[in-house]
Amino acid sequence: MGAMARVSQAHLDARRRQILDGAAVCFARNGFHATSMQDVLREVDLSAGAVYRYFSGKEELIGAIVEEVLGQVHEGFEEAARSSPPPPPDRLVVSVLGRVLATKESLTVDGRPAFPRLVVQVWTETLRNDELAAVLREGYGVVREAWTRIVGAYQDAGVMRSDVAPEYVARTMMAAAMGFLAQQALFGPAPAEVLGEGLRALMSMRDEADTR
Amino acid sequence: MGAMARVSQAHLDARRRQILDGAAVCFARNGFHATSMQDVLREVDLSAGAVYRYFSGKEELIGAIVEEVLGQVHEGFEEAARSSPPPPPDRLVVSVLGRVLATKESLTVDGRPAFPRLVVQVWTETLRNDELAAVLREGYGVVREAWTRIVGAYQDAGVMRSDVAPEYVARTMMAAAMGFLAQQALFGPAPAEVLGEGLRALMSMRDEADTR
Repeated sequence: MGAMARVSQAHLDARRRQILDGAAVCFARNGFHATSMQDVLREVDLSAGAVYRYFSGKEELIGAIVEEVLGQVHEGFEEAARSSPPPPPDRLVVSVLGRVLATKESLTVDGRPAFPRLVVQVWTETLRNDELAAVLREGYGVVREAWTRIVGAYQDAGVMRSDVAPEYVARTMMAAAMGFLAQQALFGPAPAEVLGEGLRALMSMRDEADTR
Repeated sequence: MGAMARVSQAHLDARRRQILDGAAVCFARNGFHATSMQDVLREVDLSAGAVYRYFSGKEELIGAIVEEVLGQVHEGFEEAARSSPPPPPDRLVVSVLGRVLATKESLTVDGRPAFPRLVVQVWTETLRNDELAAVLREGYGVVREAWTRIVGAYQDAGVMRSDVAPEYVARTMMAAAMGFLAQQALFGPAPAEVLGEGLRALMSMRDEADTR
């Protein structure tokens, strides 16, 4: 503890960052299950003692990574919710997704962005890991609530039809972002603007009842 | 071969169906990598000889499953593309997604629909299986082309703004469907209508340039 007291908070934060990023690359590369703490130690080039001071093991690492990403997403929405009416969904998705992709840009696996791979690996892991599934469910719940509030604001401002449950729109917007990330893991990177443009075109349509 | 000749085509088809469905449940449960052909044989309750008459191994099984699903999706779009203008995106997504979910409805893992789990497991497997990645890339390419043609038809009919690349809209619609499936794997089943309603609400908006 004496040694701990002599290092600055900035140093501690940087060390924590280094460990989280290294673990994220490992998980993105081989999946959570097939990654050992030995793999993480090798990746970050630190001793077991240095790493275990911050994280008790893989579970805590993946939990911290998931919480951080979902926290960034949530922050983006909170910021958006402060303007009235909030930015339209196409711009909102581009700004939140772009923000998350930017913070993870430096992490790569085989020269390709690691983040989309990590997302898909985490999804699969939750299928057999109840603890991680609970973390994810809670994090997504927070994001869904934020989206739901923003959709309510669109409807209150009269810029979106109000006969659809805000929750359904929130799920749809999250689905678009999640699927867009899956596409990047499967087929390679694409700028968030592709999704933004697609949504913008969709927003230019009218449904049946309006067009007939 | 003499024995083969005495069984009807209907019987052969039913047997093939039984093997594909059993394999799909196994892959959905534990993932492709952790599933052995022994697991598949146990699941379908057939002898190795009976199964290997149809499929040479896991690779061929997963390839057949992926091709079948993407074929169903593609069929749904081809059908839609025959009407002019094609059905709006919200109804199209519900009909295609609903059709695929319905054919897989009887397959369950732990009492929950197996299909969304299977989709996520396949995505993860493609991250380390180049052959499967190629199958998936080709199948998605065919679906994306079909969507792109339909988007072009919306634009030609003047029901969607035409300053956005049809390809971007196609990717966005596919992203929404893919993410919606991922949500079901993670958080439990939801009817395709949730996504349809969400898209319908989105279509009721106008982008910035129009609302200002």
